[in-house]
This record gives sequence, structure tokens and C-alpha cells, in this order.
Amino acid sequence: MKRRQTLIFKNRPYISGAYAIGGLREGEGPLGKWLDSSLKDDSYGEATWEKSESRMLKTAIKSAVRRGGKREDEIGAMLSGDLLNQLMSSSFMARDLHIPFLGMYGACSTMTEALILGAVLVDGKYSDNVVTGASSHYCTAERQFRMPLEHGNQRPPSAQMTATAAGAMLISSEAEPAKSQTDEAGRLVDLKRVRVESGTIGKVIDPGVKDANQMGSAMAPAAVDTILNHLEDTGRGMDYYDAVMTGDLGFIGREIVEAFLEDAGVERSVIERVYDDCGAMIYAPDREKNSGGSGCGCSASVFCGYLYKNMKTGKIRRALIISTGALLSTISPMQGESIPGIAHAVSLEAE
Amino acid sequence: MKRRQTLIFKNRPYISGAYAIGGLREGEGPLGKWLDSSLKDDSYGEATWEKSESRMLKTAIKSAVRRGGKREDEIGAMLSGDLLNQLMSSSFMARDLHIPFLGMYGACSTMTEALILGAVLVDGKYSDNVVTGASSHYCTAERQFRMPLEHGNQRPPSAQMTATAAGAMLISSEAEPAKSQTDEAGRLVDLKRVRVESGTIGKVIDPGVKDANQMGSAMAPAAVDTILNHLEDTGRGMDYYDAVMTGDLGFIGREIVEAFLEDAGVERSVIERVYDDCGAMIYAPDREKNSGGSGCGCSASVFCGYLYKNMKTGKIRRALIISTGALLSTISPMQGESIPGIAHAVSLEAE
Repeated sequence: MKRRQTLIFKNRPYISGAYAIGGLREGEGPLGKWLDSSLKDDSYGEATWEKSESRMLKTAIKSAVRRGGKREDEIGAMLSGDLLNQLMSSSFMARDLHIPFLGMYGACSTMTEALILGAVLVDGKYSDNVVTGASSHYCTAERQFRMPLEHGNQRPPSAQMTATAAGAMLISSEAEPAKSQTDEAGRLVDLKRVRVESGTIGKVIDPGVKDANQMGSAMAPAAVDTILNHLEDTGRGMDYYDAVMTGDLGFIGREIVEAFLEDAGVERSVIERVYDDCGAMIYAPDREKNSGGSGCGCSASVFCGYLYKNMKTGKIRRALIISTGALLSTISPMQGESIPGIAHAVSLEAE
Repeated sequence: MKRRQTLIFKNRPYISGAYAIGGLREGEGPLGKWLDSSLKDDSYGEATWEKSESRMLKTAIKSAVRRGGKREDEIGAMLSGDLLNQLMSSSFMARDLHIPFLGMYGACSTMTEALILGAVLVDGKYSDNVVTGASSHYCTAERQFRMPLEHGNQRPPSAQMTATAAGAMLISSEAEPAKSQTDEAGRLVDLKRVRVESGTIGKVIDPGVKDANQMGSAMAPAAVDTILNHLEDTGRGMDYYDAVMTGDLGFIGREIVEAFLEDAGVERSVIERVYDDCGAMIYAPDREKNSGGSGCGCSASVFCGYLYKNMKTGKIRRALIISTGALLSTISPMQGESIPGIAHAVSLEAE
């Protein structure tokens, strides 16, 4: 019997609150209007970039809890992570909140990793409220993985920009109170509730890519493997979903996923209708400058901002979100190692 | 109502297999005989220390799965972590195994963090078999957090030695087959089964220590907070347990925990009878050289070796294990930050 990688949530916990925050570039980007807030200055008033990132994550986590109508002392656990060595953004954020803390590391796959385990804690009745989050910051990631910004080095067109962004979701056993909202045409619309239906834990897949400026290629096979395992485990076709969104493959990785899915028998028209990638959506296409966004905060902010809001208004009913991670370390490329990829999927439903 | 930090496992999953591996120094130490294997050469035949650590962790994980009588393709999830930037040991270990992977970061608290979430996955019937593990290596940690070994720098007596060690436990919904074993007196003894009864998720507590050579002091308050919350949540006294073991506080941290517990009303005689610290047990006391062991592999190898084997033979019936983590990063001390501490507790029963 084939091992299932997908966990089904019988009680389908609610995403009762969410918050997305972005930096200056993200606020000005195509999805900027879906952010709950964006920075006018990416330092966020802090003395170090690491503290700026940590503060963004704290804002997202605290705001998601508040939007879900909960107090910090009602939260049973906080699951979060980031790209920094030893999860500095998350650890220092957690220091300021008195919430039991579980640190996650899945590189840019962290948001869905935290969502799966958070949903397990609520669905299994271990906790009534769990908050999950992830962050990244261009200025912390550049100096940690590549070069200090002051160096002003050039980047090849295949390189992605680490998003300055964070997102957080509150997962609850009970639905939040009913709310309505005026839509663009001035009509009053009842907001849907978003529930976590299932999650698929990914395996590490290393296609042998050694170039840290080719992250999309390194992560795409893991994303495809997780999507196909999810569909096989649940007996669904890709057209079951209104939206299938990978985390941060960027323009190059998105093309690879599309080609692989087509090879696996998914119709081109379905791929074109439902599939997209947060890394390819977050910035205006400018392939001279970069190949799209990356970083834990990329998919976290797109899922908590654009996707969540479109599910609340009912424009997207069923979504499969797949954050994708490149599990290289600060020293593994220097030791000649290739880049292992991973991707975890979460199925969300609006009703 | 006070928020509970403790999760009760109704189905009490089984630790159906465990494996502890140590380096040369650990093999020669007071607990060496409880290790399942120890290295003759800490490089483990690999070209970099990071690969040596990763290989130790892979040995522990694969052996725990085999000892539990399972194949890799029967394992629903693997939860592991280490101290290295971006969990290099775990990520590269996971690349070689085809098991869905969830990376954990809790510094040296990782073993119990992984055990709690692994037990939740099995107890909640999301998976029948989950493997958990953690590792550390003196040579990777020294160069990452302090100085390259070649530098030959001096260490103050309060500094702890990062253990070269790894441990792994297989958590299963069903008990392993009954086994017996000849004890030291030559008698045939039926081996007990070890079950996970509950877990307590810790909060981040930062006592303001800024000296990275004073890890025990930085982590001790978090350990005490988690122990006291566990006892309050479960309505137990510390004498409920035959053994209460913290992760890697070393000699100084152990003294602080003892004093804090006594302040909290625990009788000195109970503390002396049941409490100890893996970091203070793993090496022969030599306070001129160091203040005991540390690192994720310290508590992982002591729990998977010494403790697990003594539970299997029934010498220890009830144990509370508390891995403790210092959430500093490679750059946070250079930015003048103090060291946040965290600790997660797991209650084990032999029956």
C-alpha cells in the first residue's frame, strides 16, 4: 500500500484571523492592495535588519490573534519560522509574547509547514487556538546568504528577490462571528469562513541544482511531487481547486512546474486557469531585474493577504497552497553541495 | 482560566524504537555504555564536520525505524532538527531518506519539541508511525557559534561542551512485539513498553544573560517554568516521577534549577532523588575543563540511550524529560542581544 502523505482534518479548523504585512517594494507591487499594511521604510524603525524582520512578524502574529477576536493568553501554541540562522526573527518575536512557542524550519516552505502542524493541534483537540506565521526580509537574507547590501553586487536575471514581508494566520476550533463587507460595486456581501481541510507533508527532493541564483529550478520538482501526491491521496483532479498556488518559484520555477504538471497529464487549460506562483505574482514582471519573489514572507503574505481576502469574499472557494523551500544553508554551497527542495501543501475551503 | 500548556495523549503512543549514537568523548564518558554505538573518529569518515553530524543523525533515524520493526516507507513523517544554520544536518539527512520531512528548530530543546509534535501526529491518528530525532557535533557548533577549532581558543569554566551525539525515537500507534533480555545478574527480564503520556510546550523566557559561555544560566528559568507549568497542569507533584531530567543545563544550570525548584516549594529530598541534567551526566565532572555538555544531541542521546534503556528494563517507570534550548543566533550576541531560553517537557511511562 502506498504511504499517504496527506492528513485529513475531520473537524476542518477555521482560519479565524489573518494578517499580511509587506515592505515598501511589496506595498507598491501588484498585490500591494491586498496587504493589511506596508512599511514606508523597510527598517521599521529598528536598529538592525534582523530586528526589523522580527518586528514585522510580531505585528502579523499579534494582529492575526486580535482579528480572530482572541487574547494572547488564549493561544495554546505559536508555530513560526524564518530564514535566519537559528530563527532569529521568530525567537526574538516569541520572547516578547507569552505564548508557548514551537520553532519551525522549512526555509520558504515554513508557512504551510506551520499551518499543517497548527491545524493538527486544533483539529485533534489539543488546543482551541493556535497562531502560525512566517517572515523574511530582503536585507537580512541578502547579507546572510549572498552579499551585504553595501557591496552592491550584480545579480543574474534568474535570481529572485527575497520578499520583505510576513504573514500570520490564527487557527481556531470555533468559527469567528459572522461579518459582512461592502464589495467594489457597493453591495453588502456576507464574508465566508475559511477552513483547513487537509495538509500534505512533503519529502525532500534534490534535483542537483548547485546555483543559489536558480532557486526556482531547485524547488520546482518538490512542489510538483507534493501537488501530485496530494491529488493522488485525495483522489482529486487539479480542477477540483479554484486556485493552486506555489510559494516562491518565481518565473522560471513556475514554467518548470507547468511543464511537469502537463507531463503528468494535467490539461494545459486547467493549469492556466487555476495555477499560479506567489513569487511570480508579488512583483511586477521585470525579468531584467529579477525572476520574481522568494523568502518565507513571500507565500506567507500572499496567502494571508491576497488569497485569504479573496476566499473571505467567496471569489476563491477551494485553494491548494504549497509553500516551497530551498534547504541550502549558509555554508552548504561552499562545500559543493546541491540544493535540496521541499514543499508542503494545505487545502483551504471557503464556505 | 489559566491557559494549559500541557497536551494529554489519550492513546499514549509507543516509543517502539530508539537509537543513541555518540562521538569518541561521549563513548568514553559515564553514559557511554548506554549508547547504541559510538564513533572511533568524530569525522565518521566524511569530508566535512557538517556531513559527519548529518551522517550520525541518519544512522540514529534509520536505526530507530529498523529497531521498531518498520520500513522507511511505513513512516508518515520525520521531525528533526539541529543547531546548524538552516538545519543543514537534518535537511541533508532527509535528502537521503524518502520520508515526509518537517524541520524543527528549538536549539537544544529540539528533541522534546519533535517528540511532542510527533506524539500529536500519532495520538491524533494522523499517522501510525513517526520518527523524531536531533543531533549536534562539537566541531560544527564550535566553528559556527564560537571559533574554528584550529584557532585553539581558551574557554572559561562556565562554558559547556557541545556533545557530538544524535538520538532518534520511533513513535507508533501500536506496541512493538514483546521482548525479553538478560539483566546484569543473568536473569531473563521482560522488557517494558515505553509510552508518551503528555507533553508541555514551553514559552520563551529571557533572563537577560548576554554571555554565550553561560548557557546554563540562560536556559534554567525556562526549564523551571516548563516543569512547574507541567506539574500544575497535570496536578502532580515532582515525586510523581522517578526521573525528571533537563536537557543540557550543565553543572551551573542544574544548581540554578535546584534552587528555583526549592524556592517553588519542592522538597530538597525529592529534588535530590529524582532530578538530574543530561548535560551534567554526559561527561565526567571536570569543572576546570567545562561545565558539562550541551547541544541538541546531548539530551537526545541521553534520552534515547540511558533513559530509554532504563525504562525498558523497568528501572525507571515514569520520567519527565525537558530538553532546553538557548535561542541565540550566530549574530544576535554581536548585536548586543541577550539569550532567550525555551524548554519543552515530555512525560514518558514504562508499563
